[in-house]
Amino acid sequence: MKYLLQVDFPHQGPFGEEFTGAFTDLAKDIAEESGLIWKVWTENEATKEAGGIYLFDNLQDAQRYLDKHTKRLESFGYGNIRAKIFNVNEPLSLIDGAKL
Amino acid sequence: MKYLLQVDFPHQGPFGEEFTGAFTDLAKDIAEESGLIWKVWTENEATKEAGGIYLFDNLQDAQRYLDKHTKRLESFGYGNIRAKIFNVNEPLSLIDGAKL
Repeated sequence: MKYLLQVDFPHQGPFGEEFTGAFTDLAKDIAEESGLIWKVWTENEATKEAGGIYLFDNLQDAQRYLDKHTKRLESFGYGNIRAKIFNVNEPLSLIDGAKL
Repeated sequence: MKYLLQVDFPHQGPFGEEFTGAFTDLAKDIAEESGLIWKVWTENEATKEAGGIYLFDNLQDAQRYLDKHTKRLESFGYGNIRAKIFNVNEPLSLIDGAKL
């Protein structure tokens, strides 16, 4: 069973290339997280939000990572962090081309 | 540029295999959507929610699909549909193994 973690929060910037530069080291660190299959980094300059969509291969690591990442985001000054963990319906997702 | 659409809404069931059976035809239809790269189908029996995470190759199709899908969900009786569209930060996502 695979698990999807969706996280978003208000973010005043930076966006785009500057966002990439600011978070490249963090992305390399996240790549080493136990249980993580992939993360899509999300940002929206118009709505002033950012976040991430994560696929994990087990629920425990998804929950552990969410706790860790929430504390990290709060330490960076972020608040109003919205997070949900879902089961992935794998048969339907594979019909729609998802890379699980 | 790629765009991520995240959608979730209250869902009383079915879940799991019964969910798969109920929505296989819809998944096949969604697979033909213009601009769609993939969709991950999400469900959570504990929180009574379901949704989807979509990757599109252009913003116009993401917005068009969201309008279409919202009307479809409402026609199925769903309400309180929460949706956000984000830019995908491709360099950071590729560091973290995302399949874009």
